[in-house]
Amino acid sequence: MTAAIVTASILVIGDEILSGRTKDKNIGYIAEYLTALGIDLREVRVVPDIEDEIVAALDALRRRYTYLFTTGGIGPTHDDITADAVAKAFKVPLEFHPEAVRIISERAKAMGTEMNEARMRMARIPKGAALVANKVSGAPGFQLDNVIVMAGIPTVMQAMLDIVAPTLKTGVKMVSETVRADAREGDVGTELGAVAKAHPDVIIGSYPFFDDKLGPNTNIVVRAREPEKLAAARADVEAMLKRVKAQMGAWKGS
Amino acid sequence: MTAAIVTASILVIGDEILSGRTKDKNIGYIAEYLTALGIDLREVRVVPDIEDEIVAALDALRRRYTYLFTTGGIGPTHDDITADAVAKAFKVPLEFHPEAVRIISERAKAMGTEMNEARMRMARIPKGAALVANKVSGAPGFQLDNVIVMAGIPTVMQAMLDIVAPTLKTGVKMVSETVRADAREGDVGTELGAVAKAHPDVIIGSYPFFDDKLGPNTNIVVRAREPEKLAAARADVEAMLKRVKAQMGAWKGS
Repeated sequence: MTAAIVTASILVIGDEILSGRTKDKNIGYIAEYLTALGIDLREVRVVPDIEDEIVAALDALRRRYTYLFTTGGIGPTHDDITADAVAKAFKVPLEFHPEAVRIISERAKAMGTEMNEARMRMARIPKGAALVANKVSGAPGFQLDNVIVMAGIPTVMQAMLDIVAPTLKTGVKMVSETVRADAREGDVGTELGAVAKAHPDVIIGSYPFFDDKLGPNTNIVVRAREPEKLAAARADVEAMLKRVKAQMGAWKGS
Repeated sequence: MTAAIVTASILVIGDEILSGRTKDKNIGYIAEYLTALGIDLREVRVVPDIEDEIVAALDALRRRYTYLFTTGGIGPTHDDITADAVAKAFKVPLEFHPEAVRIISERAKAMGTEMNEARMRMARIPKGAALVANKVSGAPGFQLDNVIVMAGIPTVMQAMLDIVAPTLKTGVKMVSETVRADAREGDVGTELGAVAKAHPDVIIGSYPFFDDKLGPNTNIVVRAREPEKLAAARADVEAMLKRVKAQMGAWKGS
């Protein structure tokens, strides 16, 4: 049985992430969110506020994966150029979207400010795109083909993702289980490699961590789309750990 | 005067980041670290534990930027394939590095475990690379040409970065100053764009934030390599803010 696979990528747009001034909080959030939906995140890129760089990354990622999620660059200032870049990548005009104009105007009024040229920037949407509502601060994101353009502010991005999620194609969910090795990575690595080779439809990852009680320890994560394959691999991992640790004698914490 | 510009990129390698299981803490740390050194971080990519993907990203990034820093995939298990990918990208053999074998063997002994096949994996270093010491857990990273290969565990990565930093070429530092607008982005966006256009050698970014007292507020970040250009742009930003806010009447917090 071949499971339907839906893939995704993330493009983070913004000088502030590359300078280190702002620490990204969106990649990890979206990654976990997509995994829960049954969408495989395959690649992430972070690029500066330079139109050609954004266009090149948009084109590379939107052609390769089922979905591309972008964050950042959709505010009212001169350095917000994501909509311009998307329009350029798709070779469509950037137009004032009447519904976006209405939403942003009403929001400005409600906030006691005025609609002006800067706020109108946020209503410029590539032709053919559908708006993605922003329940937090008004100015919408948008979706054009397989590209979903979201805000960079985490609370706003999260609200937009909730709006888009029910409309996304999803694949068979990757199920994952974690086996705590109670051994060091280096003690079980070779044997774990043999188990991984014996289960080609299962992804087996090994993640060292520092255990306050035992010292260096390892989490072995087993992931698969088919529960029976997952269970078989997990059983083999556990049998291997038992065998290797018996050979080593009692586990010696450091 | 043209300032010497040194650029960098980061390649994060690991399924666990893309699945959301592990939240990356290295990108923001390296970004801030390089900025402080006077190295411009220009691009970041995150790719899975798939050799062809790693090789393609290595080649794209190492050719384009002064330095490429990688994190992840240098442990003792089957999913640690960064050294293999670097050797393949540079078309050099992957060999047991005598000094790495010595370091890892001594470490294993000190920890009361044995040198074995899995630990020997960590001593496989692309031919011609120089080791990067790991004061935290022994197994070294390495540098080949302009590619610096570091561990994924933040404490180990940070120790490796400290070792490499003094050897890096650095450019003229980007100096940055933050002006708190006490205005909403949408109220000052157009005028800020005009100031940015008048100062082409200065990078002006606008970052909205929520102010507990005033409500929506904006940080304007002015960045430049030449202090006098920075000062001139900052003065224009401040004059602009004064002018716009006077026109708007008293600042109305929401």
